[in-house]
Amino acid sequence: MADVIGTGTLLRDRYGVDADDEALHLDDSGTIRGLLAHHSVRAFERRLVSPAIVDTLIAASQSASTSSNLQSWSVVVVRDEAQKSAVAALAGDQQFIREAPLFLVFVADWARGAAISRSRGEASEGIDYFDSTLVATIDAAIAAQNAVVAAESLGLGAVFVGAVRNRPDELSALLELPDASYPVVGVAVGWPDPANPARVKPRLPQSVVRHDERYSPASVDDLADYDDALRVFNESQGRTGSWLDAVVARVRSRSALHGRERLRSILSSRGLPSA
Amino acid sequence: MADVIGTGTLLRDRYGVDADDEALHLDDSGTIRGLLAHHSVRAFERRLVSPAIVDTLIAASQSASTSSNLQSWSVVVVRDEAQKSAVAALAGDQQFIREAPLFLVFVADWARGAAISRSRGEASEGIDYFDSTLVATIDAAIAAQNAVVAAESLGLGAVFVGAVRNRPDELSALLELPDASYPVVGVAVGWPDPANPARVKPRLPQSVVRHDERYSPASVDDLADYDDALRVFNESQGRTGSWLDAVVARVRSRSALHGRERLRSILSSRGLPSA
Repeated sequence: MADVIGTGTLLRDRYGVDADDEALHLDDSGTIRGLLAHHSVRAFERRLVSPAIVDTLIAASQSASTSSNLQSWSVVVVRDEAQKSAVAALAGDQQFIREAPLFLVFVADWARGAAISRSRGEASEGIDYFDSTLVATIDAAIAAQNAVVAAESLGLGAVFVGAVRNRPDELSALLELPDASYPVVGVAVGWPDPANPARVKPRLPQSVVRHDERYSPASVDDLADYDDALRVFNESQGRTGSWLDAVVARVRSRSALHGRERLRSILSSRGLPSA
Repeated sequence: MADVIGTGTLLRDRYGVDADDEALHLDDSGTIRGLLAHHSVRAFERRLVSPAIVDTLIAASQSASTSSNLQSWSVVVVRDEAQKSAVAALAGDQQFIREAPLFLVFVADWARGAAISRSRGEASEGIDYFDSTLVATIDAAIAAQNAVVAAESLGLGAVFVGAVRNRPDELSALLELPDASYPVVGVAVGWPDPANPARVKPRLPQSVVRHDERYSPASVDDLADYDDALRVFNESQGRTGSWLDAVVARVRSRSALHGRERLRSILSSRGLPSA
């Protein structure tokens, strides 16, 4: 039976502070333990991911909820070296994408729905609205998350790649994505390189992201404490930098968007006007 | 060790067709088995979800990846009966929200980032762009998915509720959500009512949503086969209706959006212009 147990180490890693008086309610199977131990992996062994595993990851993705069962998403499985390298060049030119044996591009996909509607002589006005882009985006995102959870349960490592949205027009051309679709997130998957282990990155205190019954603004002290905890973590990884500084750098101007400020017009030109 | 095993029942339920020659690669822990067995639950026992479980679900949510570790999402935990009923009224007036002991509203949240930037005398122009709304939306969606996976591993049932976007202005007022945030999805959580068991709903064949190296349009035959499989499933549940018809109904005109066609202007008025 599931049991309430002390889980000091899991929580210390997850929140970067001692939490000896906290308790989590874990399942027997290890599923929650696996979720809590998530850490992005960007260093992979030179070892392929078997076809049966790929099938399994996608079955896991398809098992996620999907709005009204519309299944308005797709996934492009990229394993070919040349194709993977071309994708990497368009997604921030990140070398780990080339080194991962498997790269999954999760796509918000109304093209299938539009084609079905067209085959009946009907229009597709409904996909022109912002909520339709969101429906497909959310579908694609939770499908991707299930693939990550499944991969990690098999001992694989994975990392989300938002940079598939850096040059979505060129990436869509490369992947031959049809109108009314766009790449939402990529997931690089492979066997973690034991010589370059990754660690769990601490998150904000639960009190900051969680609100009971109604929203309550974060306390300045909680944010400063987290900034300290993350600085300690970063230093343990040989890195510097403050979380608060990073947030300000992302928020204060459009210069941090690195081309993604064009995203809305690109989606419009691809048949997703998000009206 | 993980092993390749025949998984006929899991696959038959998931895809609605016999798949005796297929094999999945499952982990030992049961995590993947749990993912594949997902089914939305909308009938709950009258039994509370313990505080330790709520803490655990949110720790699982926080353990999901988040773009650049920005953590631009929040969750509002709704358990108070009156508050939950008010939320239900604004989210499609769905009775199961009232009956679920726990309702989680996952929020795309740039308010925290904007406040940090403001506290330093900086602007927040970066959040005005479509990609920023997407970053926060995707963060919130995969956090919600982790909560669902964790809940199900504990024997709880859950269902996503996109209808929190039906009247986002009023729901935001009710939950006191600040500017630069909006409700992305809700998740109703509770102990499944054994008198009203839910079943796994078949999904499209993997060949339809999956594309190797490049996108390939779905075959008409595959879509028709799925329509048949889902019709059989629906009839087994005492329901009628065709998947293809449902897709066309959603896609052909804006009338299926039930108010969500206003979403973009509402988000703009809430400080997320999605430029």
